[in-house]
Amino acid sequence: MANLKESEVIQSLSHELIDQFRAIVGEQYMIVDEEQRNEYGHDKTEDYLFLPDLVIKPSTPEEVSAILKVCNQYKVPVTPRGAGTGLAGGAIPVRKGVVISMERFNRILEIDELNLQATVEPGVITEVFQNAVKAKGLFYPPDPASKGSCFLGGNLANNSGGPKAVKYGVTRDYVINMQVVLPTGEIIWTAANVLKNSTGYNLTQLMCGSEGTLGIITKIVFKLRGFPQKNVLLFIPFVTNEEACKAIAAIFVEGITPSGMEFFEREAAIKTYEYCEKVLNSPVTTKLVDGMDAYLLCELDGNDEEVLMRDAERVMNVVEKFQSGEVLFAESSAQKEELWKVRKNISPAVNWYTLTKSDDVVVPRNKLPKLIQGIKAIGKQFGFNTVCFGHLGDGNLHVNILKEDISEHDWETKIPEGIGEIFKLTVSLGGTLSGEHGIGIAKRPYMPIAMSEVNLNLMRGIKKVFDPNGILNPGKIF
Amino acid sequence: MANLKESEVIQSLSHELIDQFRAIVGEQYMIVDEEQRNEYGHDKTEDYLFLPDLVIKPSTPEEVSAILKVCNQYKVPVTPRGAGTGLAGGAIPVRKGVVISMERFNRILEIDELNLQATVEPGVITEVFQNAVKAKGLFYPPDPASKGSCFLGGNLANNSGGPKAVKYGVTRDYVINMQVVLPTGEIIWTAANVLKNSTGYNLTQLMCGSEGTLGIITKIVFKLRGFPQKNVLLFIPFVTNEEACKAIAAIFVEGITPSGMEFFEREAAIKTYEYCEKVLNSPVTTKLVDGMDAYLLCELDGNDEEVLMRDAERVMNVVEKFQSGEVLFAESSAQKEELWKVRKNISPAVNWYTLTKSDDVVVPRNKLPKLIQGIKAIGKQFGFNTVCFGHLGDGNLHVNILKEDISEHDWETKIPEGIGEIFKLTVSLGGTLSGEHGIGIAKRPYMPIAMSEVNLNLMRGIKKVFDPNGILNPGKIF
Repeated sequence: MANLKESEVIQSLSHELIDQFRAIVGEQYMIVDEEQRNEYGHDKTEDYLFLPDLVIKPSTPEEVSAILKVCNQYKVPVTPRGAGTGLAGGAIPVRKGVVISMERFNRILEIDELNLQATVEPGVITEVFQNAVKAKGLFYPPDPASKGSCFLGGNLANNSGGPKAVKYGVTRDYVINMQVVLPTGEIIWTAANVLKNSTGYNLTQLMCGSEGTLGIITKIVFKLRGFPQKNVLLFIPFVTNEEACKAIAAIFVEGITPSGMEFFEREAAIKTYEYCEKVLNSPVTTKLVDGMDAYLLCELDGNDEEVLMRDAERVMNVVEKFQSGEVLFAESSAQKEELWKVRKNISPAVNWYTLTKSDDVVVPRNKLPKLIQGIKAIGKQFGFNTVCFGHLGDGNLHVNILKEDISEHDWETKIPEGIGEIFKLTVSLGGTLSGEHGIGIAKRPYMPIAMSEVNLNLMRGIKKVFDPNGILNPGKIF
Repeated sequence: MANLKESEVIQSLSHELIDQFRAIVGEQYMIVDEEQRNEYGHDKTEDYLFLPDLVIKPSTPEEVSAILKVCNQYKVPVTPRGAGTGLAGGAIPVRKGVVISMERFNRILEIDELNLQATVEPGVITEVFQNAVKAKGLFYPPDPASKGSCFLGGNLANNSGGPKAVKYGVTRDYVINMQVVLPTGEIIWTAANVLKNSTGYNLTQLMCGSEGTLGIITKIVFKLRGFPQKNVLLFIPFVTNEEACKAIAAIFVEGITPSGMEFFEREAAIKTYEYCEKVLNSPVTTKLVDGMDAYLLCELDGNDEEVLMRDAERVMNVVEKFQSGEVLFAESSAQKEELWKVRKNISPAVNWYTLTKSDDVVVPRNKLPKLIQGIKAIGKQFGFNTVCFGHLGDGNLHVNILKEDISEHDWETKIPEGIGEIFKLTVSLGGTLSGEHGIGIAKRPYMPIAMSEVNLNLMRGIKKVFDPNGILNPGKIF
């Protein structure tokens, strides 16, 4: 293990250390109060809580560097934190120590319209960035469901996806360069601001998805696209999950690449409708069709209305070959927004209904029917219900396991065994543990299911190259 | 330095070692004859020649593993080799020892039409693979100029691009998983056959572009796209290089993404026309326009003819704003092929005319005019002529420095200084050393211009994790 061992963790920060941090960022950017620190002890993963000893809010790479040099010298665990919207516990300070909150790194530094690039700080909210580039006719596609609150730096750390990934790719497909502070305090740029690069090992791609274990990102250069002018949205009901999954594979085989291909079970829809009405006070007007267990949201986008309508027709022709209901063609932007509201509120809705453990498995697209069947069978065997939904266009299924009336004891012992079975099934179908949420602490015990010890040792070796003392985000991934 | 030091290289392989290799692959797959070994001592880079002690041609991952275990035990330098079409000397055995030729790994193992994926061995010729998937209506876009002879494994090792990269991305954008034999002999898969993956560090992307220094690729899983049905090709003359470069940036700002945006100087065209006539015996019929110093090949592709024609018109409207000549709209597939023949034969033509040193710099697109101006000025200062061409849609310029009547002494001392100036200029414009050819031995001395010592040490550290004895492709990159 390259990570800091429990025994090496200092028990609490000395006054001298706290003074050093204060001298770096100033009193007003330190949180020592327990109640306020509490906020930085959890994210959106289950009900985990690990209290950090101290929260620091630097605002420059130099401040981050100075903090890390101190932490590295005294072997203080450091957990970098974005907006805390993660679903695998990646930003939780499990070994206590210092949380570095990146919330003050919230500036869009440049939108370069000539080169279709933008330079941002990592604490910019994803949607704020999307809107800023859209105002210039440009498009930054990655759009995790939490885009209204999550940070771009967190998106990078987890290689986030979202509905548009199926056509436009994930976060890693847009980052071309970043400024990173290494755990030892050096500030580097990983690459150059160019679209193609074969100059040494790809440190940019290595950082992306490394969940804050290799360095702290302080600037990001993204490439951008032109914003697609038009889109159409189809809401397609199916008799069973399996029929929906088969239709998805068939649509892609037909040569159509939708800009969104989202799936949810009837149960997900029902809970979300209830949540929208009772919690958001914004009831859903689109009715669910009786006898239909699964739903697809299929979005097509582009700049040519005629081409879009033709492709929509092709999708409908494919769908007809499966047991499906009447397709709702969302006409108004209000109706489109409502349907997306349902999709984006599934996770909050299910978590409002009951505590969940959330998975994020991914398989080759045509293995989805077997995956969902298998998950339901495992649920029966281990005594849990699941709500399944997600980005099935790229084979990425979110599985929320519902606590409901499961005992605390079973929730902590039996259910994790069942999750292990889901992962074994996923890997046996050619898939892997996480498509976009990362491993963090929640999936860490299951890594040997997906990875050989040789692979894990390579990763541990890389970790040690970047972080010889194992201070940065210890206890995560492996 | 993680690499094997000169002093550690065994001077020649003992009979005992050669017997061990013979037992692994069989007599007929060993080359000991000096003349035949010669063939494996160079690639397409200048006139380098380094004779290996032995060439071995395994055909299974297990054989590669067995060979590497022996080499690792006895610290024998190993250079993996694809088709030997590289332009940076990456496949040249500079420390002698064993060359492992991957030429027998030449099978396409599966084209999975349901998931739009293919599994191949690394010794498959790029164009053979493209044609095989095209026969099923599918598209593998990366198309280096050497696609008729280069191997997919070499494309991965160098992260090759080609004309289509500007719209469809480079090799790294298509690989989702690979089987790799580590220098220590373990066989691993880097990931899973999935489109999204946030499961630990991205070993796939780390391998891609690592120029055979971290492991030997034995299987590759690529994702594929639907094959675009239609394309149009415009041949656009400009009065100066600068005007052509400015027009390129303007076309992208207009929101158009061509599937090819190739540039060449008049001098490149003239040499290639001559080469086509005299060497290929296939004269070019398309005339060059008088008074025009620069040419663009702009290809648009898609499935809708009307959309393509509309976009072509938009390109022509942009081009009119710059000092350009009459646009040739290539109608017949014969004319398109001829124009692509010119583009693809520039490098062979220039190398037929004289020995060259070839560069592969990349900058943000709107910095191209400054880059080309600067290169010509440096040429004047250091006394060399250049032929410039390349994939200017993604800012990637190939610069061939012509030996012509430069003395041997100046060629080896003064010209490399001039190349250093070109790289300094490139980096000062926000660019870097290589867009798609890699670093190999040819660019290795210049790495500190693009990379801090901290970056280089991270790379050396990673190298050591994969290859503790530094046996694999020593002397390359850093």
